[in-house]
Amino acid sequence: MSEKSRGTVDFEFSVDRNIKVPLTDQILGYIKMKIIKGDWITGQKLPSQRKLAELLSVNRSTIVEAYSELISLGIIEGKYGRGSEIVNNTWSMMLSGNTPEWNRYIESGIHKANQPTIQTINMLEFDNTITRLSTGEMAPELFPHEMMKKVLDKIPSRAFSLNYIEPLGLLELRKALSKYLKIHGLDVKPSELLIVSGSLQALQLISISILKPGSIVYAEEPSYVNSLRIFQSNGMKMKGIPMDRSGMMPWIIDSNDSENSIMYTIPSFHNPTSINMSEERRREVLDWCISHRMPLIEDDAYRELWLDEPPSKPIKTMDSTGNVLYLGTASKSLAPGLRIGWVAGPEAVVERLGDIKMQTDYGASSLSQWAMTEWIESGLYEEHLKIFRKKLKNRRDFVLDVLEDYYSDIADWNIPQGGYYIWLRLKRKTNMDKVFETALEEKLLFNPGFIYSLKNNSNLRLSYSYAQLDELKKGLIKLAEIIEEK
Amino acid sequence: MSEKSRGTVDFEFSVDRNIKVPLTDQILGYIKMKIIKGDWITGQKLPSQRKLAELLSVNRSTIVEAYSELISLGIIEGKYGRGSEIVNNTWSMMLSGNTPEWNRYIESGIHKANQPTIQTINMLEFDNTITRLSTGEMAPELFPHEMMKKVLDKIPSRAFSLNYIEPLGLLELRKALSKYLKIHGLDVKPSELLIVSGSLQALQLISISILKPGSIVYAEEPSYVNSLRIFQSNGMKMKGIPMDRSGMMPWIIDSNDSENSIMYTIPSFHNPTSINMSEERRREVLDWCISHRMPLIEDDAYRELWLDEPPSKPIKTMDSTGNVLYLGTASKSLAPGLRIGWVAGPEAVVERLGDIKMQTDYGASSLSQWAMTEWIESGLYEEHLKIFRKKLKNRRDFVLDVLEDYYSDIADWNIPQGGYYIWLRLKRKTNMDKVFETALEEKLLFNPGFIYSLKNNSNLRLSYSYAQLDELKKGLIKLAEIIEEK
Repeated sequence: MSEKSRGTVDFEFSVDRNIKVPLTDQILGYIKMKIIKGDWITGQKLPSQRKLAELLSVNRSTIVEAYSELISLGIIEGKYGRGSEIVNNTWSMMLSGNTPEWNRYIESGIHKANQPTIQTINMLEFDNTITRLSTGEMAPELFPHEMMKKVLDKIPSRAFSLNYIEPLGLLELRKALSKYLKIHGLDVKPSELLIVSGSLQALQLISISILKPGSIVYAEEPSYVNSLRIFQSNGMKMKGIPMDRSGMMPWIIDSNDSENSIMYTIPSFHNPTSINMSEERRREVLDWCISHRMPLIEDDAYRELWLDEPPSKPIKTMDSTGNVLYLGTASKSLAPGLRIGWVAGPEAVVERLGDIKMQTDYGASSLSQWAMTEWIESGLYEEHLKIFRKKLKNRRDFVLDVLEDYYSDIADWNIPQGGYYIWLRLKRKTNMDKVFETALEEKLLFNPGFIYSLKNNSNLRLSYSYAQLDELKKGLIKLAEIIEEK
Repeated sequence: MSEKSRGTVDFEFSVDRNIKVPLTDQILGYIKMKIIKGDWITGQKLPSQRKLAELLSVNRSTIVEAYSELISLGIIEGKYGRGSEIVNNTWSMMLSGNTPEWNRYIESGIHKANQPTIQTINMLEFDNTITRLSTGEMAPELFPHEMMKKVLDKIPSRAFSLNYIEPLGLLELRKALSKYLKIHGLDVKPSELLIVSGSLQALQLISISILKPGSIVYAEEPSYVNSLRIFQSNGMKMKGIPMDRSGMMPWIIDSNDSENSIMYTIPSFHNPTSINMSEERRREVLDWCISHRMPLIEDDAYRELWLDEPPSKPIKTMDSTGNVLYLGTASKSLAPGLRIGWVAGPEAVVERLGDIKMQTDYGASSLSQWAMTEWIESGLYEEHLKIFRKKLKNRRDFVLDVLEDYYSDIADWNIPQGGYYIWLRLKRKTNMDKVFETALEEKLLFNPGFIYSLKNNSNLRLSYSYAQLDELKKGLIKLAEIIEEK
């Protein structure tokens, strides 16, 4: 390769103004073709932007756009004083070839317009200069450091090695969970439990091992799962089920397509609405699913985070038919970074999911699994929850006071009985994209309601779990001003 | 549901002996249809096997087979003295509906015949009564307990919380790795590194985000990747590249299908042959890949485990075109249970892989990532490697002595310069399935060579890394007897 000429490439090309392809795309297509054919090689230079604009008689901005795209694909690098050099010809081409396909896959989902918003949120959640009004995580200051230290101290004496672990996950952890879950009324054997690297992975495993492309996933409207790509990326369709104060109302929808469909619900302190499903509704939802032969995914991530009184027993406790797959996680109640969640269900189902898990990552971190075992067995997990609930309740009350003072005229909201979120409904129809952008300029990040919804709305999700209280208050006051101005 | 009759179902059906469908399948089909239609419900009983055999005028074994299948699908349960009861009608049906499709997907791969062997191996690796002659893991007794204790002691002072982590993984770990990898001649920025939950996940991410169904994955013949389902399950095809003592020889294959293809290699102490690629061969493989515009996955899992002298520098260090994606892992050198691996490559590629990772599991365990950071930064990782290499070398020499004494007449083998494995070539063509089965009866587990190969062979992989030495010796002596008898 290195023997070949390293000069500037020959640009034997002219644009065609009679076809409908944008000029930028024509130029990009020519350059990519030359590189992929091997006519132009790594180390050669493209003409300067000014020269190429002259040569092709196009606007300079057309060339700027084409070169920027090549830079972002990693195909060329703009080096100061040295022009634009071809730096890669293999990966970049595969990626640029793949980009449209991956996008097409994602865009075939329902949620196109919102994608950029979610990307922005994911990115800015790691920016420390931003006040995060919606983040669904425990504040770092609430993390139980001292207890974690005790847990880590105990691990060396029990984890004799960190070898590969059997498909369903560490037996000690499954035994500890089997015992612990009894306090929620769940009677689950270790063989009916699968340890996963967080609930998101459980959903991923369900979508690739139980559902099919074209399967319908029913969920509350709005729902957290609508902000994920997981089902859509695997070819499933999302359909929304309306809610009232007691939870989802599946009987309202007209479902004749129950074959290969699945129901997903967050019954306890629902994300994003915080609605807590009543005991009666839990039975009704279960009965509806059984009579429609529709398996039910019960995502109980927020169960432990009750602030006034515990939620009703899990739907799974009411089910004698094996219809419910129950998801739990340490991510909201203890630490998302542990990446530990669990799935409880019929043995045949959890074994299937466990097999597929082994094929993709050989199981969750044993260090995390041993840590979680120790958290539960030592009783520190329950002790931590007691303290955490109190602190979370103070945070909730603090934010409710702020809302009372600054949002009474512009919004309605629920009073959450648990979980992390307040679901704010603006009284006036508002362009939430604009509010989102203006808030960002003020270094405020919040999650607009439309990312959780299959339709547009003028809602927003607030979280009292993450930001520091003084910052949170300042941010909320500023946000109210922004909303009023729009 | 519970109001309906709970008696024995009505079996209005007769088999048809004029069609080609096996009687068992006819009976199974009828039962499943009745349950899926809801005519028969949970809690009802099927006729006893004897009665049903009489009723349908079929052999009793036909009914036994049908009921066994229903039991294994979780659709019925055989209760002592109470007959066979329908226990499930939703999940089971979805699973039984899905089974053929998932199998079809896997079976469209090349490797059908071996699947059961690999399943057996995966299962028995968690059976403590078995002597494991091939397991590719560090023996629990070699695990550096005391050092791990020091590492865990340090974590609380630095991991202020275990919150979600940015898409590429913990920055502190990427910085530590960026520095550490310099000792191998690798000059990789933290932004060019992605932390994964083990190398297997890296391969999974590559297959779903860079390759396409129909893409060809070239790898050494034999190769570890042939024992995985990962590429085949995603629709890729495997093709083998012959090796000599210096490593793979890609120029021997006739490749016109380089578009969307990828090269996978384990250059240092290859799994399963332990062949260590020469420096010259590394350059030749790289040149071949570049001239064929084929990206190269360099899986360097065994680099640190040299026993006599370090292997040549990674292929990636010879590459100025960004053609190589370099995989490293702590699984072989420290602890598989950490589930920590890394990918080094062009920023655009690792970012793409990181995005897809976020969509499937929100990243690797932060606890594991902090632990690995501490291992590297404290210098304990290098200290451990020095000790581990010495112990591993003793183990290798011990096993080579055993082979010299007991296998000289029946096999040839390489002398591994590093890694875990000895690749045994039997002198006589041998039915390895039979040897495998007989060995299992004697509580000996080994990996037959054919699971790593696209063709049959009379090889087997041994590992000197896992079993206790006295057990290993006893097992190997017994295995030699079994081989001689076949």
